[in-house]
Amino acid sequence: MSNPYQYAKRNQERFLDEYQELLRIRTISTQPQHAEDVARAAEWLREMMLRIGMDSAEVILMPAGRCPLALGEWNGAGEAAPTILIYCHYDVQPAEVADGWDTEPFEPTIKDGRLYCRGAVDSKLHVMSNLKAVESCLASDDKPKVNIKVVLEGEEESGSENINAFIAAHPERLAADIAMISDGAILAPDQPSLTYGLRGITGLELHVSAPVSDLHSGHWGGSVHNPIQALCEILARLHDENGTVTVPGFYDDVAAVTPQDRALLEKVEPFMQAEWDDVVSAPSVWGESEYILPERLGARPTLEINGIHGGYTGAGMKTVLPARAFAKITCRLVPHQDPARALRCVMEHIKRIAPSSISVEMRPSEPGAEAVLLDVDGPAMAAAAEAYTFAWGVEPVYERAGGSVPITFECMKVAKEVVIMSYGLKSGRAHGPNENIYLQNFYNGIQSTIKFIDVVGEGRG
Amino acid sequence: MSNPYQYAKRNQERFLDEYQELLRIRTISTQPQHAEDVARAAEWLREMMLRIGMDSAEVILMPAGRCPLALGEWNGAGEAAPTILIYCHYDVQPAEVADGWDTEPFEPTIKDGRLYCRGAVDSKLHVMSNLKAVESCLASDDKPKVNIKVVLEGEEESGSENINAFIAAHPERLAADIAMISDGAILAPDQPSLTYGLRGITGLELHVSAPVSDLHSGHWGGSVHNPIQALCEILARLHDENGTVTVPGFYDDVAAVTPQDRALLEKVEPFMQAEWDDVVSAPSVWGESEYILPERLGARPTLEINGIHGGYTGAGMKTVLPARAFAKITCRLVPHQDPARALRCVMEHIKRIAPSSISVEMRPSEPGAEAVLLDVDGPAMAAAAEAYTFAWGVEPVYERAGGSVPITFECMKVAKEVVIMSYGLKSGRAHGPNENIYLQNFYNGIQSTIKFIDVVGEGRG
Repeated sequence: MSNPYQYAKRNQERFLDEYQELLRIRTISTQPQHAEDVARAAEWLREMMLRIGMDSAEVILMPAGRCPLALGEWNGAGEAAPTILIYCHYDVQPAEVADGWDTEPFEPTIKDGRLYCRGAVDSKLHVMSNLKAVESCLASDDKPKVNIKVVLEGEEESGSENINAFIAAHPERLAADIAMISDGAILAPDQPSLTYGLRGITGLELHVSAPVSDLHSGHWGGSVHNPIQALCEILARLHDENGTVTVPGFYDDVAAVTPQDRALLEKVEPFMQAEWDDVVSAPSVWGESEYILPERLGARPTLEINGIHGGYTGAGMKTVLPARAFAKITCRLVPHQDPARALRCVMEHIKRIAPSSISVEMRPSEPGAEAVLLDVDGPAMAAAAEAYTFAWGVEPVYERAGGSVPITFECMKVAKEVVIMSYGLKSGRAHGPNENIYLQNFYNGIQSTIKFIDVVGEGRG
Repeated sequence: MSNPYQYAKRNQERFLDEYQELLRIRTISTQPQHAEDVARAAEWLREMMLRIGMDSAEVILMPAGRCPLALGEWNGAGEAAPTILIYCHYDVQPAEVADGWDTEPFEPTIKDGRLYCRGAVDSKLHVMSNLKAVESCLASDDKPKVNIKVVLEGEEESGSENINAFIAAHPERLAADIAMISDGAILAPDQPSLTYGLRGITGLELHVSAPVSDLHSGHWGGSVHNPIQALCEILARLHDENGTVTVPGFYDDVAAVTPQDRALLEKVEPFMQAEWDDVVSAPSVWGESEYILPERLGARPTLEINGIHGGYTGAGMKTVLPARAFAKITCRLVPHQDPARALRCVMEHIKRIAPSSISVEMRPSEPGAEAVLLDVDGPAMAAAAEAYTFAWGVEPVYERAGGSVPITFECMKVAKEVVIMSYGLKSGRAHGPNENIYLQNFYNGIQSTIKFIDVVGEGRG
């Protein structure tokens, strides 16, 4: 007789092939020219969900016509059984060889037990771990004792605007007892971790202009406030020397780090420091000196400049005094900051400090996402801990993740409990070049999700 | 009987055609992919110089193999006669439609009495005004009473390194009684101006790096000094709120603005302010409040950021914490600043203020150029004033130009006197999009150069 754990192990090779097939689709949701790739992936996922035995699956077009949802349901456990909602996203960040990739970003490459590809960690790993876990459960003789909904988003990397609206308009479609958000990263290949907090996000583009067009810096330099300089002067006034954000009101609603937080996060610190040394490896650790590393990364908000451009940046000298310059900014938020209020504080501060010698235009990156704090002591978290322990052979530690998983907040509206289960690795370079996973994490992830479904079905979740 | 002034007027249309032919050649010296265009233009100019009746003309290859000189001589006035050296440059700055051009940057377009094209002002206007003046002189019955050397540089926009070395190695090739540097801009279409000072230049690229590769700003933000932020913090500390450069030692050798300077430059102020309103049109005039506009633009040094780049600057959001960021900086210098010393001051200051949380690399843009101050009361300046008055019907005013004409300093080594004669306009958007001239300035320029040759030949220069 076949059980789902054995089924998954027997089909490991095929599962890996299918994972790679999905990785090859350039689901870059932030770039309109990839809209067709995103749509193709959604259809691929719909067919996959029907093929693995779900009752129904559909592609839901979003109002803007881009980045559809793929939604699947299996209700074989009956009306009395609880329902698990599994959320993942299949869209990815942009990637170019020129960013520093050693391989083609959209061609999966396996080397020394790792798989390199854009989306390998963030988040096609989770899409495929979960679909293959569901396949394994539905293919075995003992059917799951929970109903299963799977929602696969195609717009997570560009703001999740439409899924939020969809959930608000159709809360029953995703209603569940437990929502399992499957995204993010664990601490180390052999150290699973459970995330009980996520940072939120808000952002804007800041455009500075002064002369009506690009000028000769010899003819006019000294008589006009250079927009690059003015932009730098504004950006330089957003942090103090300790790395603390200087925007008035920015920290007003920030939840204090409690003694329980400090106790949990101190266990994580050595792992994080090791990972920092490996992945970041800057000349020195930076940031608010009164907080330990896991607090800076999970329990404290940030204001980060993600991009800046102005003037001539090609080869050789071009003595131009440019007409304009701009920067892209995002803030990571923590409980209980309101994204709209945090953004307003930043925008008002910039408006206040911008000199009258230049013009400033700010374009908010709507919508933001609130930070999330989950119950460390709840039953869903206990089921997740049991699943990790089964799959990895090691108990998880508890951390607060620095990234945003905006959907979590929405899921909290439609599910009684929410748990975040990550199978990626921080060292996996999500959003950067050479994004990769350990293949073993993919296989462990499948086992972990099967176990989670089992435990919840047995009424222990 | 034909005189050169009449000859020039009769051939105006053909001269304009030839000018446009030269404008179409993409002589972008800063971009290696245009090396062949630059070489082709040099050959075109050599043939032109022979065709207009000069005794000899040659293309002189530079050591790096790029951006050759075109050199012509006419010695028909005899050994006893004085020699005029006419200098211009035929290379141009890069230009792309995307920079904001309303027309193809390298296709001359005539509209409402103006000609739009990259190089129209800077400086093919001067190349062609002078060659066509020489043609007119040599074609007339009364031959010039001065010998004429013409040197056409192909590397002015990318540092003039090789012409400086060439002059140092072969001073006799360019030796002259009067060097006429033909570059730059006059104050207004109907107000010629004589430049008695030019700013020098020096520059560098500043690279800041911190993490070893681009990171996810959620995972790592708050623990590493963002290189864009650090770069902005450094750049924001290079000026005070008055626009004064804060680099220690930067102003040590700066010549004070004298009462004579102030008296001459006050006459220029209304023209400059009008031109500023038209061309710059920023929210407000900016810069050192204790100096009037023509002083800020000609008698005071600057530190200008010409370009900046870091992180993701494409469409949509990419929450990246970038590995590096850089800026391109140039300083305009005044008498008696030494370019090497000024650059050293800037580099030492940046090194001093750069925090230990990031790595800094600085790449000087060699070589710099010293500023120039010419004798307002000398005979060459008087001849130039007579030439302008003849061609424009208006006496010139005296100004100090903000741009650099690095060759001036070199010409001062090989010529007894140096004069700078500009036929372009500040409103002509040199280095920017929609660079243009009034066609009338081209025709006036030809008449002016003929007159200058005449006056010097009559022993009044």
